[in-house]
Amino acid sequence: MTTMRDPETRAEASPPIAVPAPEETPWRRRHLLDLDDFSVDELGLVMRTTDAMKEVLSREVPRVPALRGTTIVTLFYENSTRTRASFELAGKVLGADVINVSASGSSVTKGESLIDTVKTLQAIGADVLVMRHHRSGAPYLAARHAEAAVVNAGDGLHAHPTQALLDLYTIRGALGDVRGRKVVIVGDVLHSRVARSNMWSLTALGAEVVLCAPPTLLPRGLRDAPEGGLPRVRVETDIDRAIEGADVVMALRMQTERMHGGFVPGMREYSRLYQVNAKRLAHANPGALVLHPGPMNEGVEISHEVAHGLQSHVEEQVANGVAVRMAVLWLITRNTPRGGRTASSRGAL
Amino acid sequence: MTTMRDPETRAEASPPIAVPAPEETPWRRRHLLDLDDFSVDELGLVMRTTDAMKEVLSREVPRVPALRGTTIVTLFYENSTRTRASFELAGKVLGADVINVSASGSSVTKGESLIDTVKTLQAIGADVLVMRHHRSGAPYLAARHAEAAVVNAGDGLHAHPTQALLDLYTIRGALGDVRGRKVVIVGDVLHSRVARSNMWSLTALGAEVVLCAPPTLLPRGLRDAPEGGLPRVRVETDIDRAIEGADVVMALRMQTERMHGGFVPGMREYSRLYQVNAKRLAHANPGALVLHPGPMNEGVEISHEVAHGLQSHVEEQVANGVAVRMAVLWLITRNTPRGGRTASSRGAL
Amino acid sequence: MTTMRDPETRAEASPPIAVPAPEETPWRRRHLLDLDDFSVDELGLVMRTTDAMKEVLSREVPRVPALRGTTIVTLFYENSTRTRASFELAGKVLGADVINVSASGSSVTKGESLIDTVKTLQAIGADVLVMRHHRSGAPYLAARHAEAAVVNAGDGLHAHPTQALLDLYTIRGALGDVRGRKVVIVGDVLHSRVARSNMWSLTALGAEVVLCAPPTLLPRGLRDAPEGGLPRVRVETDIDRAIEGADVVMALRMQTERMHGGFVPGMREYSRLYQVNAKRLAHANPGALVLHPGPMNEGVEISHEVAHGLQSHVEEQVANGVAVRMAVLWLITRNTPRGGRTASSRGAL
Repeated sequence: MTTMRDPETRAEASPPIAVPAPEETPWRRRHLLDLDDFSVDELGLVMRTTDAMKEVLSREVPRVPALRGTTIVTLFYENSTRTRASFELAGKVLGADVINVSASGSSVTKGESLIDTVKTLQAIGADVLVMRHHRSGAPYLAARHAEAAVVNAGDGLHAHPTQALLDLYTIRGALGDVRGRKVVIVGDVLHSRVARSNMWSLTALGAEVVLCAPPTLLPRGLRDAPEGGLPRVRVETDIDRAIEGADVVMALRMQTERMHGGFVPGMREYSRLYQVNAKRLAHANPGALVLHPGPMNEGVEISHEVAHGLQSHVEEQVANGVAVRMAVLWLITRNTPRGGRTASSRGAL
Repeated sequence: MTTMRDPETRAEASPPIAVPAPEETPWRRRHLLDLDDFSVDELGLVMRTTDAMKEVLSREVPRVPALRGTTIVTLFYENSTRTRASFELAGKVLGADVINVSASGSSVTKGESLIDTVKTLQAIGADVLVMRHHRSGAPYLAARHAEAAVVNAGDGLHAHPTQALLDLYTIRGALGDVRGRKVVIVGDVLHSRVARSNMWSLTALGAEVVLCAPPTLLPRGLRDAPEGGLPRVRVETDIDRAIEGADVVMALRMQTERMHGGFVPGMREYSRLYQVNAKRLAHANPGALVLHPGPMNEGVEISHEVAHGLQSHVEEQVANGVAVRMAVLWLITRNTPRGGRTASSRGAL
Repeated sequence: MTTMRDPETRAEASPPIAVPAPEETPWRRRHLLDLDDFSVDELGLVMRTTDAMKEVLSREVPRVPALRGTTIVTLFYENSTRTRASFELAGKVLGADVINVSASGSSVTKGESLIDTVKTLQAIGADVLVMRHHRSGAPYLAARHAEAAVVNAGDGLHAHPTQALLDLYTIRGALGDVRGRKVVIVGDVLHSRVARSNMWSLTALGAEVVLCAPPTLLPRGLRDAPEGGLPRVRVETDIDRAIEGADVVMALRMQTERMHGGFVPGMREYSRLYQVNAKRLAHANPGALVLHPGPMNEGVEISHEVAHGLQSHVEEQVANGVAVRMAVLWLITRNTPRGGRTASSRGAL
């Protein structure tokens, strides 16, 4: 017999986090709703803060008390394993308390309005509301009425900013700067909030974004007048031409219900024409990254071989997701008042 | 770059909670099932303990380790966002661990008896069972067989004691003493456990309670022989006369399923006759409080204007709910044995 | 008024856990999938480690920081109150963070493969995956692809190792050594992963296991050629002969859906022939233990009287379950790499 001593002692003397100093930071946001108005500096700040959070996650005891006393409520009107768990762990690593609320099992089913639900959760003590909703714009409505910080974890077909930030972090980790890089997004762009948020951040940093999908799965504006959209976004319906010379190939999830909605002739037809597979990936630049927001339909939008191949960064995306969400939670709570206090007044910086 | 130091250091040197001293406290309860036998002293104790908990919640780091090592299980046979989340946060603020169990996803669906479920959760280590059940009396059954403390979070049509305590705390916060005050409870009294629990606590402290509802939504005993009920409770079916001179107007949730049950002719008819709106509220005393246990059906039992008006204390009710539940959890665990120890033997008082 | 001081101070100076020293321990496993290949030494190690965990649970503040910084994900494809809550509390008592994922509400419903779900949860940061699945072998598949530790919390009809370990711990607590003891397992052996895992551990330690069930509820191999199975397992379809001289009588849950599957003529018939009741228990040795994995169908496989009688150890089983799972989580994380670190490198031993 021997005895195990208390590792908490060490944990408490845990080294500080090397986060960017307040005076260097352009972050003035109370909410994270989308990336459409993010400046290059803000994106850079999130990236540098994520670096600091990655360092925390690599520690022997990957926990810090940065958000101790903070209450995060995840309010999910749509199911999601990975996004909810990722935010939950991000909060817990930073020492916050996380309370999960899902639409099933909530007052939502009793007909309470979204605004009243938000006000209630905030009255209960939520400092941050991480919200996923099937309606585009729902987090904006929440943010307009909330004193709590609202983080959009995916709203309808509109935006999924933390996914785009983790994609950006993953791309930069592999390629360095994204300026001038060609990023091809293949698949159901029409229904993809991931694609939408990625277009904003990638083009803001000077990447060239090529959307590739059957015409029925492209947003109307982009399909009809691609030149009228974002300056650095273009459409290419031929997948081989799209992937030619790409630095990043991002396959989007094909939701099987689309198959029955008349958007595509069938799953086999779709795979034949638009699946990201080894043969097609060969047209990309050597070492091009393969990304996917998950969960993957292997054999549909991506082949098994590519999904798990050397160029796949899918697991790294997931791992980076926790660090990016830690960064977002940390940045956002610095500007959220609660009873007159803010996180920045709490933690010595 | 700068570094963020560890705010935990401060948190650990957190100031003590100014809770009432044991010798001042008449609390001898192992469970909180209803308020029907609460003395004036006990209600006062809960109120003073809630004051101490409000102070904790106003701190920069609103966390204390008072219930560290305590396991709270929320056992909900009915869905509820606000009540479950409120108890969960109350427990976590006090440093307890909280485990959520809902009827869907539990052995309940495998036909296990309530008593066996309670004994199992207690054998797992639950010190406190926070229980919501669709059957009136279920928490009493649980308490009879439990060594763990049972807190009733709403049982059938019977009782919802923490809601009544938070209502009391909210009223006292605005009006001071409730003695001699007129409290009008409007709406579906028949199906309201909130109304029932409120009648006990408010009349015990000397308030006058007026119930106002269509005759079909009044409990039989009160409808037929109001003088035979509680001494300070009376019935008034005319809403204008009921609200006349009121200090508090509490609107109850009208469950839409009642509309189809023949209890009321229809939602529009009900709203026309019993909705708490600005015109009716004008009959109350100036500055009268408007309360609602939530979730609200705006436009049915309460107008949007009043629900969010200056006299509405609905959000304050929710905020006070966390503090009241902290007080209840703290008081109740002082008398709950667990392996021979009690919370009062744990925490220096 | 008085003030409550911070009990955390004491908690942090919590005495060390008296766990077995590494040099004494034959534990080399990264996963806990079944007990079929457990050595006598390994079973002994789990038992001794459980002793240490029982001591922790008996403390005034039953929490230790042994797994601080560790992330445990419970991934349940089947509902279970007790097993999930037991693992959740076991993790929290040891200071780990626990994230619950259930199949409903997860990517599972979006058609993601089990392997991808496992890889995703591990990329999010899971150090341990506690997994229950309706398919036999699913945790083996997960373990083959996981760097995280996989703990089988019940897979199909195959195995439920932590249940068998807690059964063993309970039996040893009452009887001391199990060598030469007669353990009768009564009921639906065919569909019982509990029975299967118990056969391995009990026979490894020299107990005699007698299976008693109607022939339709016995595994084919055992029914047809009992002598061809485990050396110390035999079948006895007559319950009175089976219980004769038994030291332990374990009743298995009869799943009511079997009643309609043609396995038994009916619930009443089954109870008449195979219920463990007082009259039958009288054939066992004096003081024989009654066990049941729960949840119980009282009046079907076990009488109410026996279920709650003096010989019943059912609640003790549940209580031991937390300690056994603490032991398993603690042992398993010592051999799980994560970013190059293991729990044993974390905690001073």
